[in-house]
Amino acid sequence: MHGATCAIRGTFFDLLDDPWKYSGKEHEAARFIEDGLLVIKDGIIADFGPFAAVSPKHPDIAVTHLPDRIILPGLIDGHIHFPQVRVLGAYGNQLLDWLQTWIFNEELKYRDRDYAREAARQFFDALLAAGTTTCLAFTTSSPVSSEEFFDEATRRNMRVISGLTGIDRFAPADFCITPDDFYTESKRLIERYHRKGRNLYAITPRFAVGCTGEMMDSCRRLKEEHSDCWVNTHISENPTEVRSAKDHFPDCSDYTQVHEKHGLLGPKFTAGHGIWLSNDEMRRFSKAGAAISFCPLSNLFLGSGLFRLGRAKDPDFPVRLSVGSDVGGGNAFTLIRVLEEAYKVGMCNNTMLDGSVNPRDQDLAEADRNKLSPYRAFYLATLGGAHSLYLDDTLGNFNPGKEADFVVMDWNAGQLAMAWHQSLAISGSGPKTIEEAAQLLFGIMTVGDDRNIDETWVAGNRAYKKVPR
Amino acid sequence: MHGATCAIRGTFFDLLDDPWKYSGKEHEAARFIEDGLLVIKDGIIADFGPFAAVSPKHPDIAVTHLPDRIILPGLIDGHIHFPQVRVLGAYGNQLLDWLQTWIFNEELKYRDRDYAREAARQFFDALLAAGTTTCLAFTTSSPVSSEEFFDEATRRNMRVISGLTGIDRFAPADFCITPDDFYTESKRLIERYHRKGRNLYAITPRFAVGCTGEMMDSCRRLKEEHSDCWVNTHISENPTEVRSAKDHFPDCSDYTQVHEKHGLLGPKFTAGHGIWLSNDEMRRFSKAGAAISFCPLSNLFLGSGLFRLGRAKDPDFPVRLSVGSDVGGGNAFTLIRVLEEAYKVGMCNNTMLDGSVNPRDQDLAEADRNKLSPYRAFYLATLGGAHSLYLDDTLGNFNPGKEADFVVMDWNAGQLAMAWHQSLAISGSGPKTIEEAAQLLFGIMTVGDDRNIDETWVAGNRAYKKVPR
Repeated sequence: MHGATCAIRGTFFDLLDDPWKYSGKEHEAARFIEDGLLVIKDGIIADFGPFAAVSPKHPDIAVTHLPDRIILPGLIDGHIHFPQVRVLGAYGNQLLDWLQTWIFNEELKYRDRDYAREAARQFFDALLAAGTTTCLAFTTSSPVSSEEFFDEATRRNMRVISGLTGIDRFAPADFCITPDDFYTESKRLIERYHRKGRNLYAITPRFAVGCTGEMMDSCRRLKEEHSDCWVNTHISENPTEVRSAKDHFPDCSDYTQVHEKHGLLGPKFTAGHGIWLSNDEMRRFSKAGAAISFCPLSNLFLGSGLFRLGRAKDPDFPVRLSVGSDVGGGNAFTLIRVLEEAYKVGMCNNTMLDGSVNPRDQDLAEADRNKLSPYRAFYLATLGGAHSLYLDDTLGNFNPGKEADFVVMDWNAGQLAMAWHQSLAISGSGPKTIEEAAQLLFGIMTVGDDRNIDETWVAGNRAYKKVPR
Repeated sequence: MHGATCAIRGTFFDLLDDPWKYSGKEHEAARFIEDGLLVIKDGIIADFGPFAAVSPKHPDIAVTHLPDRIILPGLIDGHIHFPQVRVLGAYGNQLLDWLQTWIFNEELKYRDRDYAREAARQFFDALLAAGTTTCLAFTTSSPVSSEEFFDEATRRNMRVISGLTGIDRFAPADFCITPDDFYTESKRLIERYHRKGRNLYAITPRFAVGCTGEMMDSCRRLKEEHSDCWVNTHISENPTEVRSAKDHFPDCSDYTQVHEKHGLLGPKFTAGHGIWLSNDEMRRFSKAGAAISFCPLSNLFLGSGLFRLGRAKDPDFPVRLSVGSDVGGGNAFTLIRVLEEAYKVGMCNNTMLDGSVNPRDQDLAEADRNKLSPYRAFYLATLGGAHSLYLDDTLGNFNPGKEADFVVMDWNAGQLAMAWHQSLAISGSGPKTIEEAAQLLFGIMTVGDDRNIDETWVAGNRAYKKVPR
């Protein structure tokens, strides 16, 4: 598979910096090459730039030309549940009821190796069809699910982060794992998978409400003994959950403090949601270098609330952010649909922040940061996600030395109205300028869906090609 | 085309009553026929029921068998803008800025007959691909757009409601029409189109903020002189707009009173959105027999706010409701996506109504009415929409005597994860019970999109067949 040298010719768009730092001139954070060449060696980007400049340096290379497409770095999903691939979009209730009704039963099936293996195949197929090449994933409290997850990711040579998912209260008995078993099994899995191939390991307390202090202590020990590992959890998704966290950790003044007390809040820590975090908690996330994964598709589907994107992007205390599908709380795999909902969440926030309902809510600077331009959106889904995961040296754009994961987008695919819509954005048959490219990408993220993902490449190999359906 | 007698064999699902009246036993409001036969004569349903019972009564009829599909009445879009077919999903701002930036320029193109004709073709193609067979549509202030709309609908023999769309302030001069011209041109169009073929006419003040008292008086005269016509407008979409309505109609205590004062609020009156209506206004809508079109896709896209579905379904003062795509404020044509967002809006409302944020907001009865089960959802998109438009004698389910518009859904189509997801809902290869059918429909409305629309039939003729793309 990999090992070979190859090159891709086409139209490229990627981000070089955080566009929130470039208000009013966001295109300066991005790069657009109308006719570019991406040279790949052993799955790593060896060279990149305009075809006319790069091509002469590689005279004998085999070039795959992908015309009428726009090529972006592979999308990075910062929050997804592997064992919920089959129950996305389940009818329900808010978070805690929904877990009881739909999720616990399904996840228990993942103790069965055959079921988990079939699910892993379905899961990664769905991810690639969605344009996602990297994810930070929850599994279940059964090691079987983590093993099948990593084994399937290994077969596909994908850059993934995951880990045994610990919960030891407020769930059915056979769904729980003891803090000791969690510690032992996590260590075994770290040895077996962490930094083997492209796998990375995340110590994963499911969410603090579902974890006793002893379980959180196991996580602390694991992080102390394996400081290179990631930490993945949930925080402040739902107001009832927030209350519950305070009830069950009475010595902590807020939900974030639970993670601070247990030595987890810091670099390589990601918590999903963060909808109900206070301003003070967001500042502590920022100072700690911890990340939030913004999951708007799920947050609307479960009615959890509106993440305060503009607040998290406070220039004085910026929080590292990824976007997450949160399948199955989220009802679609593709981050294209997640970006659509992220845009809507920002817009809904702004109808409060414009002060028209309550003059004291007016904050036009924060409102401006809520506006999800295509530069900001695709930053979150690529380089921003990589930055939030401390993987921006490895992933997120087409800089030489990074891993060659990318998606090939067809801007005209999707609902029937798409092509005529997109024709408004461009003067020719394809984008000629970075602004035209950004317009097409905005069309994709608002009117499009997974149909716009025509191909997905992993480490320099085509891993998915769309079959119309 | 029509005139012939034919029959469709397949699996049918429709609504016979409002499922909100059947809390806890909503299936009693619906009808499921696993192996049914729909007999159509001259575009009208002549007979309907189980194949075994109906078939012997029509021995020589040609039967089209549509296996592995679920057939529903054609979807009814209660709020859509014909001249925004090309600008759906435009980047922007809240309502009033968005109109200025994107919409006015595009709509001006519809003074050109060739452009309007091409747009009408695109519009109805997109509607049919979305499963929508009837719509209540805005046009522009240029009669050309209304003519091309009705002419194209006539060619397709579709049941549509539309009318010249009046605005005479707060818009570019060439976008406005004088109250006198609006009156004269509306009368001409009523004579030419109303009840010609399947066309119905709606007197259409765009929204009261954009209409002077004189324009509203023209609308009152038109309604007095043509009481059989519909009325279509917007109301209370955005808080700034609500304030503006009060400023510009200082003799009205609220937005609804503008329509009451001008004799418009009553049967066959539909206003889009109604997000910021007070409880008192909703009660007056209910008493007047006036309708709201709930447009969640647009409401989230423009950040307008969360429609209080459960409040509108107050059993003591129920408001007639349709769902609307509100293309181009809405970013997709299919009501499948609209129902997805409607579900989310209900869920977001409920995180407030559960009292966890503010105990005084707790209202569990209203919260229950916010929960959009598949019965409720597809009621809104079929029989409920027809009821809101006073067309439930003509459209909305498969009762003999009604017009034979229907959609043929493929429950497995859509994103790659769909088929495995749907397989959880059914015990066999298709739905065997009404509950299984409802589960599949919930899967379609949450995980699906226009790909689930396999065929769309208008007045007994196949008007759309999906081409995978």
